[in-house]
Amino acid sequence: MHHKKSFQIEFQPLGLRDRFPSGQSLLDCARQKEIDLVSLCGGTGTCGKCKVQILKGSVSEPLQEERKLLSSEELFSGYRLACKTHAKSDLVLNIPPESLSAPQRLQVEGLDIPVFHDPFIRTYPVSLHAPSLTDLRGDDQRLVDALQEQHGVSCNKLDESVLQTLSPFLRSTGWEASVAVRDTEIISTVPLDSGNLGVAVDLGTTKIAAYLVDLASGHTLSAKGIMNPQISYGEDVIARMVYSQRSDKGAQTLQKMVVDALNNLFQEFCQDVGVKQTEGINEVVVAGNTAMHHLLLRLPVAQLARAPHVPAVSRSMDLKGRQLGLSIAKGANVHLLPNIAGFVGGDHLAMLLAVLAEENPGPMLAIDIGTNTEISLVTEGMISSVSCASGPAFEGAHISCGMRAAKGAIEHVRITDNQIQYHVIQDARPVGICGSGIFDALAQLLSQGLVDKGGRMMDDHPLVRKGQNGLEVVLADEIDGSAPSVVITQKDVRELQLAKGAIRAGIDILLKENGLLAEAVNEIIVAGAFGSYLDISSAVCIGMLPKIPLDRFRQIGNAAGMGAKAVLMSETKRKKAQSLAQEIQYVELAGDTGFQRIFMEALDLG
Amino acid sequence: MHHKKSFQIEFQPLGLRDRFPSGQSLLDCARQKEIDLVSLCGGTGTCGKCKVQILKGSVSEPLQEERKLLSSEELFSGYRLACKTHAKSDLVLNIPPESLSAPQRLQVEGLDIPVFHDPFIRTYPVSLHAPSLTDLRGDDQRLVDALQEQHGVSCNKLDESVLQTLSPFLRSTGWEASVAVRDTEIISTVPLDSGNLGVAVDLGTTKIAAYLVDLASGHTLSAKGIMNPQISYGEDVIARMVYSQRSDKGAQTLQKMVVDALNNLFQEFCQDVGVKQTEGINEVVVAGNTAMHHLLLRLPVAQLARAPHVPAVSRSMDLKGRQLGLSIAKGANVHLLPNIAGFVGGDHLAMLLAVLAEENPGPMLAIDIGTNTEISLVTEGMISSVSCASGPAFEGAHISCGMRAAKGAIEHVRITDNQIQYHVIQDARPVGICGSGIFDALAQLLSQGLVDKGGRMMDDHPLVRKGQNGLEVVLADEIDGSAPSVVITQKDVRELQLAKGAIRAGIDILLKENGLLAEAVNEIIVAGAFGSYLDISSAVCIGMLPKIPLDRFRQIGNAAGMGAKAVLMSETKRKKAQSLAQEIQYVELAGDTGFQRIFMEALDLG
Repeated sequence: MHHKKSFQIEFQPLGLRDRFPSGQSLLDCARQKEIDLVSLCGGTGTCGKCKVQILKGSVSEPLQEERKLLSSEELFSGYRLACKTHAKSDLVLNIPPESLSAPQRLQVEGLDIPVFHDPFIRTYPVSLHAPSLTDLRGDDQRLVDALQEQHGVSCNKLDESVLQTLSPFLRSTGWEASVAVRDTEIISTVPLDSGNLGVAVDLGTTKIAAYLVDLASGHTLSAKGIMNPQISYGEDVIARMVYSQRSDKGAQTLQKMVVDALNNLFQEFCQDVGVKQTEGINEVVVAGNTAMHHLLLRLPVAQLARAPHVPAVSRSMDLKGRQLGLSIAKGANVHLLPNIAGFVGGDHLAMLLAVLAEENPGPMLAIDIGTNTEISLVTEGMISSVSCASGPAFEGAHISCGMRAAKGAIEHVRITDNQIQYHVIQDARPVGICGSGIFDALAQLLSQGLVDKGGRMMDDHPLVRKGQNGLEVVLADEIDGSAPSVVITQKDVRELQLAKGAIRAGIDILLKENGLLAEAVNEIIVAGAFGSYLDISSAVCIGMLPKIPLDRFRQIGNAAGMGAKAVLMSETKRKKAQSLAQEIQYVELAGDTGFQRIFMEALDLG
Repeated sequence: MHHKKSFQIEFQPLGLRDRFPSGQSLLDCARQKEIDLVSLCGGTGTCGKCKVQILKGSVSEPLQEERKLLSSEELFSGYRLACKTHAKSDLVLNIPPESLSAPQRLQVEGLDIPVFHDPFIRTYPVSLHAPSLTDLRGDDQRLVDALQEQHGVSCNKLDESVLQTLSPFLRSTGWEASVAVRDTEIISTVPLDSGNLGVAVDLGTTKIAAYLVDLASGHTLSAKGIMNPQISYGEDVIARMVYSQRSDKGAQTLQKMVVDALNNLFQEFCQDVGVKQTEGINEVVVAGNTAMHHLLLRLPVAQLARAPHVPAVSRSMDLKGRQLGLSIAKGANVHLLPNIAGFVGGDHLAMLLAVLAEENPGPMLAIDIGTNTEISLVTEGMISSVSCASGPAFEGAHISCGMRAAKGAIEHVRITDNQIQYHVIQDARPVGICGSGIFDALAQLLSQGLVDKGGRMMDDHPLVRKGQNGLEVVLADEIDGSAPSVVITQKDVRELQLAKGAIRAGIDILLKENGLLAEAVNEIIVAGAFGSYLDISSAVCIGMLPKIPLDRFRQIGNAAGMGAKAVLMSETKRKKAQSLAQEIQYVELAGDTGFQRIFMEALDLG
């Protein structure tokens, strides 16, 4: 079925996999999958731009060109030039963002919510008296007194790493400084006019979205999205938790990957706004799912990975960024939003915070679709939440031609008169299908009678053929032997049924527990990156979402990021997040007696 | 004047120096100076007990025996067996405490002061409910709730390193724990019945005194004194500050030396009271002079070493012990008492705290004699303090036969009818003279007419002879050519005049500034290790202390240690220390117009 001499290569973080003939350069393999690796020299090994990292498997020995262009540290960490390297076994590769010319589509925008701007951290310019024989106050006291005299601000604590450089710093600036105060603690002293910046982070399993905020004005200065680099150690949270438990080094590695990625983001942010040093960042707020939260802090995850899935930490946390290795102001803190449960984290809370900033029109469902899907039902004076293991199908995993929403992915499908039409991201040659495309396709297969309500493919339909792995529908034909066809298989349909069934069961249980019918729900909010690209009518068609009028649905983008930003900018919102976390009733599906039956019913399409 | 082939060897922390013939083992050199190095095998190189560390100079190559008994790390750090090593140049040696069989005399006891026992840290036994499908609280919340329910204690913060092990810990103990709470923060969770210990530290330039306290009962369980190991990098604070400024590594080294010494003390303390782990220590209080305080925290000292000698930090500090590398409870803090000025530190404040716990009988002088001498004058509602650079004569430095108060030191001297009598510590053969002996001797020289009031030795007195370095008085004769004589030289008398003059000038300035005569002072308190051994009548005789009735003097031992203990055991005392620090008026001698004249007068003996 495959060429005799060929190897399987998996490209991360794109989630693309295929077999390629041995001896072919990794650059050529990538090109075949429409992956735009930067290659200024056209593959002659002189520009050094097509760096990839070998995570698993063995490759050819480094050539002279590579030894010249890659540092020994890079070679040691498995970095190679794709144009000069070929596979010697099956491989898993990591493509660093700088090697990709067409970055992945990463949602950072979301619902714009009104936030009263009352930041936790303020900065003050001060001018101190130099010491003399008649003024021998310690430098710490001198600073505290100046803040009191010049701004009426009382501080009772100075961060110890501020103290460690305060004396030479004040003498170098002529006794002038911009002082950042958090509550009653001095967390930073920097030269005058260094700004007062904050960063909000939505730390997802797949994606990290970050927002640079001017804490003085409340304005968002920049927003960026990147892939979570931990993805090369596992696409889902379970794989990563297992990896982190293997050894202390495993946990360290995962932590460092995210910390390094955040530090890079901070650096880019500061460059964007013309600030030289990331020391101007006075606070970071992180909203993440419970597993990402724990891996970032290197908290124990054994109890989180096993039933009944208890978080080590559910309360909000504040700790000095330096403890995690974050390059921010010396005494700056990281605030982590509370976790609601083992599989409902601070990101869902942040989303709810964003959603509930608006007038609540009555019973509302708020859904965060992903590998793990969190759903909250908000009724008057009551919020209940569930978590459903919807699996990685939305990210293209476990789907025969699945991939993430990147160049070459089929993202929309229509079937009319046995003619299949599709749209490919960046209008490229189709190489796979991403989450929104998969659900679109399933809805079309169902409405056009290619599959029945039970999910069975109709082998007598003209578009259904018998492929190597059973029944399948070809969406895009094979091209000249080099690019295989893009298909949806019977097995893919079963995967999708499990995913959509889990989500629908979660919704139905919440409604049942609250004694509500779907029709009573006034609004269904679909949040998250995947949720933004999802065709709601397709989702309703296959029965993933309840059949209520389409105008009651609202796709709001990255609301978790917006909520994290609100917590960064406003003390009021920070307190609101705390009280929300207390209010929410978590409903454990495994504890619901009717769950099995409801889940079985939810597997049906339509 | 010396043998042709001989080298100068300085033994630290004892402060003994002499020349020795080349080729002689370091063990034999030490024995000649009455230093009791442990040597079970009698110098055959088999027991490995006579370890010394070469700090400066070069020595013979390590022999086979040494390579066997010393780790490569030890050899790398300059450790050698004294019995198998000889000097190849002038040397400075460090003798680690474990190599000394007769430890140095180190004062740890002091004035017993009444302390109301209201500790800052309390421990509570708790028993938690294990999680289940109907109780999915995070482990942190579970603990907070249990404290509230079982003890009515509200906590709003959990130390992050407690959180990092909480989940596996609770599961390993069957959901039982002893929880240490500081203010409203959970700082430690340990198995039930682990105790609630605290350590108070008086961090001196020469000595470190430490006290283990049961915070639950307020009882002192153990007390220990050791030499400050930093001594091998400089006997006075200036030398150490210079060393710490040379490079970041220098500052690190000095910090690590004290931290390691404290960790050893903690270990010994816990062994003494049968506690397995130092994790039972829930708080450490440190009272040190300003320089020791700064070196412990690696705070900048450039501005402290130069006029006007401003501390980087004068306010009290609380920081997590782990930040310094202290092996105590995970989230336990170190509290550092405030510094009053660049050369009046938290140790003097602690001493005042101890002294002022009693009824104040009217104008009182409190004096801490050392290389730097701090003096406070307490009158009704007013405390003023000065610092005098009295120099290291009290520690035996800069005195021709000076040494610290260790075995072989002459500590008391009497001259009657031209007969010199002396007492030697541990009744050993005299090898030098320590601080109390030096001042005793000077008082005797003065009262017996061997020196005049101006400090000039009488060359016509039968006990005064012309030595190699000018006039001298022989206290103990040379013994069979191997041990040189112990003498007091004219130059020694000049050193002592400078030392005592500095102290007396400090006292006189304080009295003058407050418009008081010496007679009006109701009590003079002499604190500190040296002050305990000092003969008060000798000190009055030479005019170091004012001539007031002897029954108004009180020697109170290590009062700084007692004050540190009070701050450890009592929240009230901790607050009192803060307010005292605010009250004290520091008087800068360099700023006093009359200082030169007063100092000149104070140089006169009698």
